[in-house]
Amino acid sequence: MKAGVLFSGGKDSSLAAVLLSRDYSVELNTFVFSHQRSLAAVERAALALGFPYRRRTFREDLLGRAVEMVLSSGYPNAAIQMVHKEALCILSTEYRVVADGTRFDDRVPMLSRDEVQSLQDTSGCSYLRPLLGYPRREVDRIAARHLEIAFGETGRIENGDYEAEIREEVRARGEDSGKYFPLHHEQSLVTGTITISG
Amino acid sequence: MKAGVLFSGGKDSSLAAVLLSRDYSVELNTFVFSHQRSLAAVERAALALGFPYRRRTFREDLLGRAVEMVLSSGYPNAAIQMVHKEALCILSTEYRVVADGTRFDDRVPMLSRDEVQSLQDTSGCSYLRPLLGYPRREVDRIAARHLEIAFGETGRIENGDYEAEIREEVRARGEDSGKYFPLHHEQSLVTGTITISG
Repeated sequence: MKAGVLFSGGKDSSLAAVLLSRDYSVELNTFVFSHQRSLAAVERAALALGFPYRRRTFREDLLGRAVEMVLSSGYPNAAIQMVHKEALCILSTEYRVVADGTRFDDRVPMLSRDEVQSLQDTSGCSYLRPLLGYPRREVDRIAARHLEIAFGETGRIENGDYEAEIREEVRARGEDSGKYFPLHHEQSLVTGTITISG
Repeated sequence: MKAGVLFSGGKDSSLAAVLLSRDYSVELNTFVFSHQRSLAAVERAALALGFPYRRRTFREDLLGRAVEMVLSSGYPNAAIQMVHKEALCILSTEYRVVADGTRFDDRVPMLSRDEVQSLQDTSGCSYLRPLLGYPRREVDRIAARHLEIAFGETGRIENGDYEAEIREEVRARGEDSGKYFPLHHEQSLVTGTITISG
């Protein structure tokens, strides 16, 4: 069975793909707002993982909607949640199994029980979150067994997180993006895989 | 890293053990209320899975407490939840990683976010639920790849579910257990494993 995994190139979505690949035929999918956006580092991460990779572009109005939500609420959470749900919705029209790297400790994006049920019922797909039952320290422990990972603040690590493009658009509108986004937000990027022996 | 898995011999806890065993050294643990209780079928399931197996007995007053909860509330849910938490608590004193077969669709036993945090904070252990991010149909799909499974109603399938012993004790007190427990409750028992080729 094929599974379409939402992939940012970061630790969590990469580990979700690795765990799922033991029972599903995994395809990685990265969404961007703009055709121009470079995803070279994400593509290298996908290549290191060895799964088929698809770059996808949201329809044009989504970035504007996301930025409006950030500016009107003062926080990025609702916008990130909306964009993540949109990505899952699009995947659910193409795959019978869709997945992401949501962890137990995550707050955003995180679909509620009702939102999961609605996604599955309306699309007929199964929505899998292989890391949902794992607290952060165990995600980190298992990730360290399988993945070489670089860490850094948003902006210093180039991955497929939605945040970077939303920040840029907030700045393009003459707003100070620092007012809306958390000061410290550690990002990760997979740079290679580890072959386990024995 | 060793992981102590709560094991009933059924489909979910067996699959949780199989998935975890790819990254942890799994030990199966089955709790009973009474030293007399036969667990022959559960022991055969453990043998088929090939993981170390430990039979454990709750301290003597727990069955009485569970039965009182069933009789006073009229339903088994609170009792099952209490007993499951007790089992996890005991395991968390011996293992740094404890796990069970809780699925996304489960209602009882199901620890809330706060209960998970409390278990982890007070014991220092990690609590893993490898199936938490999987809806039932995907659990069934993956289980069918790995496990030979027998299905049947409670009482016709001998597994390590707490319910059978609580039902018996309710009857031993002269009460009609049918008044308190759901009429239909499908149980499963692992009878073998499937070797995946390719």
